[in-house]
Amino acid sequence: MLGPQNVRVDKRSRIEHTYGKSYRDLIRARAGIFPAPPDGVVYPIDEGQVAAILSWATERDVAVIPFGGGSSTLGDVEPQPGERLVLSLDTSLLNRVVALDPISHTARIQAGARGPELEEALNARGFTLGHFPHSFEFSTLGGWIATRSAGQASTGYGRIAEMTREVRLVSPVGLVETQSLAATMSSPELLCVLAGSEGAYGVITEATMAIHPQPSLRDYRGFLFHQMKDGVAALRTLVQQGPRPTVANLSDAAETASLAMLSSDHPTLRAIGDRMLEMYLTWKEYDLANGSCFLIVGYDGEPDQVAKQWQQATAICRDHEGLPLGRTPGTAWKRDRFTYPYLRDTLIGMGVMVDTIETVTSWSNLLPLYKEVTSVLRTVIPATGGGTGYVKSQVYHARPSDACLSMTFIGRQVPGEEIEQWWAVRRAAMEVIAGAGGTLSYPLSAEQDRAKWLAREVGPIGVTILRALKQALDPAGIMNPGVLPPV
Amino acid sequence: MLGPQNVRVDKRSRIEHTYGKSYRDLIRARAGIFPAPPDGVVYPIDEGQVAAILSWATERDVAVIPFGGGSSTLGDVEPQPGERLVLSLDTSLLNRVVALDPISHTARIQAGARGPELEEALNARGFTLGHFPHSFEFSTLGGWIATRSAGQASTGYGRIAEMTREVRLVSPVGLVETQSLAATMSSPELLCVLAGSEGAYGVITEATMAIHPQPSLRDYRGFLFHQMKDGVAALRTLVQQGPRPTVANLSDAAETASLAMLSSDHPTLRAIGDRMLEMYLTWKEYDLANGSCFLIVGYDGEPDQVAKQWQQATAICRDHEGLPLGRTPGTAWKRDRFTYPYLRDTLIGMGVMVDTIETVTSWSNLLPLYKEVTSVLRTVIPATGGGTGYVKSQVYHARPSDACLSMTFIGRQVPGEEIEQWWAVRRAAMEVIAGAGGTLSYPLSAEQDRAKWLAREVGPIGVTILRALKQALDPAGIMNPGVLPPV
Repeated sequence: MLGPQNVRVDKRSRIEHTYGKSYRDLIRARAGIFPAPPDGVVYPIDEGQVAAILSWATERDVAVIPFGGGSSTLGDVEPQPGERLVLSLDTSLLNRVVALDPISHTARIQAGARGPELEEALNARGFTLGHFPHSFEFSTLGGWIATRSAGQASTGYGRIAEMTREVRLVSPVGLVETQSLAATMSSPELLCVLAGSEGAYGVITEATMAIHPQPSLRDYRGFLFHQMKDGVAALRTLVQQGPRPTVANLSDAAETASLAMLSSDHPTLRAIGDRMLEMYLTWKEYDLANGSCFLIVGYDGEPDQVAKQWQQATAICRDHEGLPLGRTPGTAWKRDRFTYPYLRDTLIGMGVMVDTIETVTSWSNLLPLYKEVTSVLRTVIPATGGGTGYVKSQVYHARPSDACLSMTFIGRQVPGEEIEQWWAVRRAAMEVIAGAGGTLSYPLSAEQDRAKWLAREVGPIGVTILRALKQALDPAGIMNPGVLPPV
Repeated sequence: MLGPQNVRVDKRSRIEHTYGKSYRDLIRARAGIFPAPPDGVVYPIDEGQVAAILSWATERDVAVIPFGGGSSTLGDVEPQPGERLVLSLDTSLLNRVVALDPISHTARIQAGARGPELEEALNARGFTLGHFPHSFEFSTLGGWIATRSAGQASTGYGRIAEMTREVRLVSPVGLVETQSLAATMSSPELLCVLAGSEGAYGVITEATMAIHPQPSLRDYRGFLFHQMKDGVAALRTLVQQGPRPTVANLSDAAETASLAMLSSDHPTLRAIGDRMLEMYLTWKEYDLANGSCFLIVGYDGEPDQVAKQWQQATAICRDHEGLPLGRTPGTAWKRDRFTYPYLRDTLIGMGVMVDTIETVTSWSNLLPLYKEVTSVLRTVIPATGGGTGYVKSQVYHARPSDACLSMTFIGRQVPGEEIEQWWAVRRAAMEVIAGAGGTLSYPLSAEQDRAKWLAREVGPIGVTILRALKQALDPAGIMNPGVLPPV
């Protein structure tokens, strides 16, 4: 059906399609634990082949797991253990920009295109998608849509669901083609049902995306604030009152201090730290080691416009006693923006437990929740044998009503119990967040209890709705079993 | 259960809840034709009463139709003829602003609040929702969400679905409470399933909305362009490149000429016409009667910011040879923005067939579709006995990738066949639009064939999805039967 070169059953291909990139995945991969690799990996070259694979799998009750870049941190691409045969459907050969409409600023792009591939193709025509998640180098358009991704420039360009105008998804019962503009005028919007579906309803094969003219300038600058609350107030004012930044990323005191510390060991981070330390010496009241918070703000655009925006933005930051650090830290941040995953991998290899929990919450809830989760994490890390531990946070994906709070916890691994330890820490934080009304992403944990967490968020009728969608689009239950409520 | 004062079975209440405000509705109401009024009207005062009514109705197989302001032009509130008892559930007693978060710029508002009611309550706290549809004076928040409404300031403040952060909907199987922030991080977004559900899944009782500080200035101005394509290019540049206007409304040559004509008979429109005619005398190359197009652009905000925006916006309009008409037409437009429905009602009473068809389409498709639909309408109006007829259009709800094309057709009513005539004209236009990939709103026509139109837009698997949602939330099929695919 696909030709022998596009069907792989060798050990390496199967191993490479077993896990994503969660802490749990990396721990198991390092330990050589691969309990349930897929039985084969298929590489369809067009939508027709995707449909043929799903028909073939339906007839034989074979499970199919869509696989984009494999950078999921939620267990989305991992086969469930059991007797059932499992195929990993790798979309990497569906990687073209199919069409670009320079008048309407949209592009039809195949779902398997990775960040650099699609940006290069768009840049060549003078456009950008503007979606730059941490995983940019490895993740795909289809993966971004299936997981409701938000990129580092989401404050300016929007989150992936906001950029998506049309989706094509091959389900086991047929093609779902949301109209261009997605039934904006009547009836529920089906596009939103497909975004976030994590492979449970079918394979996203293509999407029409809003694109933007390549900006001639990306002017990113750093500021230092006395306290977290000052930085939060400045960031909130920027997104509520404008000029709305393209990029805005606030580090809490611990993250700010670690940036400064890391700068001496990590050459690519040095520029941030050097500049900050220099400033620190000049303005004593900013205390890098204990309290001050670092904010990156960036504006993409034409020089005239960006200059005007910076004039206003600087005034807003100064209103909150933000100390301008100039462009040097901004330039360093831009250069190093995709390095976090590498750093994390290195740390894990050195016996360090490290993971990040994100939640979106309202501005009024942000600081109380930040304090509460930080405090819980600081208690639970030592309790699980992780040593003193370290908790540092960032605020990004800011919108007028809310922002994303991203909390990284670091501790000492307990050998042989790395996953249980990690889950105990993570679960404690998730309990606090869920109790406070923050939205969550749920890893398929050691307990495989994602459905329980999901039910807490969407409620019993929400689960009924998700179950009905699953039943309608995948009545045989072959698509990525386990990630959303089953039939 | 509700107390006698909140259950009405008198003739007047039933008549008033039989129709919305479509052309077909107004024709029938004027002729005294009320074939299937609801059997009663209930006015719940809280969410518990809504749930109790749905339980009561489920037990007795009584149909329930949510009724907000009754301004629907799609037949959404009209009972189906038949033996089954029908209750109209009027939400007008659920009309409070429940809570306002001045930090996060959100407000929890009950679904039955009408435009002026909720704006007044928000304004008193220094905020605005910024949603101003034509029906503003009579329509409700719940109705806006249930029909995916877009207001006149949608270019600045967004369409209703973009403003909605959380929805509470009482379905026959229980309460659906989309999390604040609507599961932005994992799983499909359930909020989008409820927006646009037109009462078919339950009763929207409350929503949390993004709100904005009341602007101290609303600076609206007029421009005149030589041709439609110049106005479209200017409008597109404004939304793609910025500064993005709060309000932007382009009239085609026919609409522009009619504004000028009407200004002599219609005192509230006079200011626009006078100013335009005066300009016309000065600049001969702009021809009001044959070709020139009128654009209203408005910026809401603080004076400094708005002044800067106007500097840039004026330059963009001039690039496309737009003639600035100043603030007088802008002020007149603001004052008269809600008068269209009144004018329409008057015309219908004078034997005039008049209706508006809207479609959202991409910028690259806009002018070709405009020309094609206009041409079809000009042919079909005389063919149905409507005389020469008159077709005029506006472009609004502009976004970077698309805009809404709103086409009004006017002809002579054929007495006794008003509805068949209207539907023949409207259907001809809808066929062209659907064929060209524009999205549509589907009136429940004389043929009651909305499901057929919907299927054309969402496709067979789309219908499967909608049917599954209906089955999950309203298994007994009591909610507003007929508006979305039935169980």
